[in-house]
Amino acid sequence: MVENLAVEQEAGASRRARGDRGGAAARRAARSGGGPGAQQAFIHRKIRPYEVLDEEGLALIEANADQVLEEIGIEFRDDAEALQLWREAGAEVKGERVHFPKGLCRSLLKSAPSVFTQHARNPERSVEIGGDATVFAPVYGPPFVRDLDGKRRYATIEDFRNFVKLAYLAPSIHHSGGTVCEPVDVPVNKRHLDMILAHMTLSDKPFMGSVTAPERAQDTVEMCKILFGAEFVDNNTVVINLINANSPMVFDETMLGAAKVYARNNQATIITPFILAGAMSPVTVAGTLTQVLAEVLAGAAFTQLVRPGAPVVFGTFASSISMQSGAPTFGTPEPSLVSYGAAQLARRLGLPFRTGGSLCASKVPDAQAAYESANTLNATLLAGTNFVLHSAGWLEGGLASCYEKFVMDVDQLGMAQKLATGVDLSENGQALDAIREVGPGSHYLGCAHTQANFQTAFYRSSIADNNSFEQWQAEGEKTAPQRANGLARRWLDSYEAPGLDQGIADGLNDFVAKKKESMPDAFT
Amino acid sequence: MVENLAVEQEAGASRRARGDRGGAAARRAARSGGGPGAQQAFIHRKIRPYEVLDEEGLALIEANADQVLEEIGIEFRDDAEALQLWREAGAEVKGERVHFPKGLCRSLLKSAPSVFTQHARNPERSVEIGGDATVFAPVYGPPFVRDLDGKRRYATIEDFRNFVKLAYLAPSIHHSGGTVCEPVDVPVNKRHLDMILAHMTLSDKPFMGSVTAPERAQDTVEMCKILFGAEFVDNNTVVINLINANSPMVFDETMLGAAKVYARNNQATIITPFILAGAMSPVTVAGTLTQVLAEVLAGAAFTQLVRPGAPVVFGTFASSISMQSGAPTFGTPEPSLVSYGAAQLARRLGLPFRTGGSLCASKVPDAQAAYESANTLNATLLAGTNFVLHSAGWLEGGLASCYEKFVMDVDQLGMAQKLATGVDLSENGQALDAIREVGPGSHYLGCAHTQANFQTAFYRSSIADNNSFEQWQAEGEKTAPQRANGLARRWLDSYEAPGLDQGIADGLNDFVAKKKESMPDAFT
Repeated sequence: MVENLAVEQEAGASRRARGDRGGAAARRAARSGGGPGAQQAFIHRKIRPYEVLDEEGLALIEANADQVLEEIGIEFRDDAEALQLWREAGAEVKGERVHFPKGLCRSLLKSAPSVFTQHARNPERSVEIGGDATVFAPVYGPPFVRDLDGKRRYATIEDFRNFVKLAYLAPSIHHSGGTVCEPVDVPVNKRHLDMILAHMTLSDKPFMGSVTAPERAQDTVEMCKILFGAEFVDNNTVVINLINANSPMVFDETMLGAAKVYARNNQATIITPFILAGAMSPVTVAGTLTQVLAEVLAGAAFTQLVRPGAPVVFGTFASSISMQSGAPTFGTPEPSLVSYGAAQLARRLGLPFRTGGSLCASKVPDAQAAYESANTLNATLLAGTNFVLHSAGWLEGGLASCYEKFVMDVDQLGMAQKLATGVDLSENGQALDAIREVGPGSHYLGCAHTQANFQTAFYRSSIADNNSFEQWQAEGEKTAPQRANGLARRWLDSYEAPGLDQGIADGLNDFVAKKKESMPDAFT
Repeated sequence: MVENLAVEQEAGASRRARGDRGGAAARRAARSGGGPGAQQAFIHRKIRPYEVLDEEGLALIEANADQVLEEIGIEFRDDAEALQLWREAGAEVKGERVHFPKGLCRSLLKSAPSVFTQHARNPERSVEIGGDATVFAPVYGPPFVRDLDGKRRYATIEDFRNFVKLAYLAPSIHHSGGTVCEPVDVPVNKRHLDMILAHMTLSDKPFMGSVTAPERAQDTVEMCKILFGAEFVDNNTVVINLINANSPMVFDETMLGAAKVYARNNQATIITPFILAGAMSPVTVAGTLTQVLAEVLAGAAFTQLVRPGAPVVFGTFASSISMQSGAPTFGTPEPSLVSYGAAQLARRLGLPFRTGGSLCASKVPDAQAAYESANTLNATLLAGTNFVLHSAGWLEGGLASCYEKFVMDVDQLGMAQKLATGVDLSENGQALDAIREVGPGSHYLGCAHTQANFQTAFYRSSIADNNSFEQWQAEGEKTAPQRANGLARRWLDSYEAPGLDQGIADGLNDFVAKKKESMPDAFT
């Protein structure tokens, strides 16, 4: 049988078998259903991680990182307290440069948990971070949006709330994230209050805190105490926070200040060297891994100096720069290799791992965006990543949050979640009875086993058009982003806020109102 | 440092560091360069394959496949010679159904090579199939094309020649493939002659033969004898051929006839169960793997009955059907799991493996096409696939060959080829001197190590636009397929045929002319 003909024949046979009316009814149902489907719990991966480095390679990179830490050292800038903590821990401090005796950081990190729970206000939405768990969180940081009218413009607090709503609704997004876009219409010193309030009230999934100043981190903690109760917050992790290194080999005052607030309060930090290889790290994968490991060892160990046992995640943001233009590139082979390698290093260190997402450099949700995002997401999942930021909505190297791409990425996350369940080897999975029942030359469309497994056998895409060319043409020749546009609008229309105790809601609103009154507006 | 801001700052710093004139000159050079770049030899993977099944799972599926072979059996239809060969080999034949005693097929397959060379007329383009080698071949089979004017129409012999030229020019396509599209303007009984002639004269890469009738397979072999010499063909593999099972559990007269011709002539066959799971196999991954293994064991062992030692490849075409519409779906999780698992089964059997490619159901080269293709290609590469059909140009579930997607996919193949080189752990790769030279708080853009590795450090995409939004806007807001359109046109403009001995060319043309004269035109 010639391959293309088989496709035609079988598709035709199947349509006939089901009858036209059934097909049309299914299509109508799919069209009228506005909601995104049932929420899925975070992932427990049943597939093993993919490894690009062998024992020898891993040991080499670890030895090199130790050498970097001891010989070159890491700078902790404008933070006398940090330097004092390092002196007391036995490091050699020269000016702002900290040199680490071999093994010091690893030894300090023994108090950090390899898996922890981040609690959500809805206990069903609490997530594990570490081990075989994978948690998908949305895009983080863009000052622009690409909106549902196809316009690229500065993001507003309304956009922010929309992306929180979309993440709340998305079946395979397990986390509300943090700066899903930068609401530039809100004064810069008050933004974090509106952002945290949105996560707390519009969603019941776990979320991220502010890291742009230590006092904003403290506001985040105070609001968490209103939402969860003060004692609960001190004993449990309820917020996770992105602490980026100023690679190469620098932690700055802002990031250290936020890290201290969160660690002191037993809240989680993600220590992430933000790497555009060739600019912030060497142009080679092994060189980049060495520097990443050194930076994470120093930054993560620092959190344990502040409060032993505070949850901390080994983060890696891996990109390369275009050697022609200097612009960052995504979805290319080198960042994938960095992600796979860094995940291995994190597992050996016993820390949860963060990398990847659905990253791309494209300005529009086109084929470039999708190739790059899929390449990144495949590596992210197979690396065995525990916390995945930027898993939906990222466009333009992180400069824009895109509504259409958000729902297209969500569809891909559902596929990743299904892939992670691995191969079902139960008797039903083996399907020997089905093979017996059908036999040579027949087909499986109507057999008992197919009917029994019909609903869950295959992942159902919410975006893909798998119909015939003629059907697709008759329905208006829509591209994937056009279908995504309709889906995003329907999801937002269907949104209903999760219930929240009125006393808590009032407490949060009062806190935000008073804080805002206490400060003049600042726009820089 | 906040993630998005870092991207902005660093990109700006880099542009400044290089100077505006340098950037503009690089862009002009990139625009004026029409050719696709240097040819790359086939891949020797330096990364390990990814495995979804453990020893227990593999043994279970192998035991189940043995049970299918013995208890249910496989039908060899309308081919008395095949049934006689099986009887003589010790199988139990009831009607057209062959039942295989446990271990018979595996025992017969001991004569099949685990790696073989397919020779090209240009020895530099010869490829290895098996082991750590991966060979990318273009799309196979579509009766339609999506042309460079965006029109979807029946394919012609001119399209066929264009795709052969594009595959010849593409740096990371190692093989000319077979039916790169179906030239429906040529009578059906003469098509194979024009197709083989195009592969032999317009390209110097290895190619595939006709399988649509035993006499057409024989014509392919005769033309190979003209191109390579009769003795060389008898002693070496110069053509590889796609033999699909009529799943479930049937081989038909046409496929068996072609397989016999090729095996008898020591040429390679790819025994491929063509699976749309849910229709041609059970809806479960383990059930599908069981049936695939049983079918391949029977079909591949058959080639060894015809001529022990004839090269044979374990093929798997994995797709699922949409349970709503019955249409085939691609890039979804279940076919990826089938590919990973089947690759493991093939390695245990000691046979080269074929699966995957850049498969998609989309009607246009949009985000759906790219997500699906990237998902398929990632699984194909990491599975450790040896021969990859459909690696570029496939659209619409294989009903259309698309020029724009062809060059977009080629770019992705280049990335896959780079990924397969793994992590360089040499002293240069470790880059400790670079980390020392740069130190904390500086950047790597101008350091000696970066300069020395500038050209080869990162994969350079021919399609991706990584420029700023403003630059992209100023250049006309082109999408990836629009850029691909320009690239395909420039490649075709730059095409020059590889040299061919005039006597051989005359011999091939004479053969084709005489064959055509000997038959009336047939269009069905």
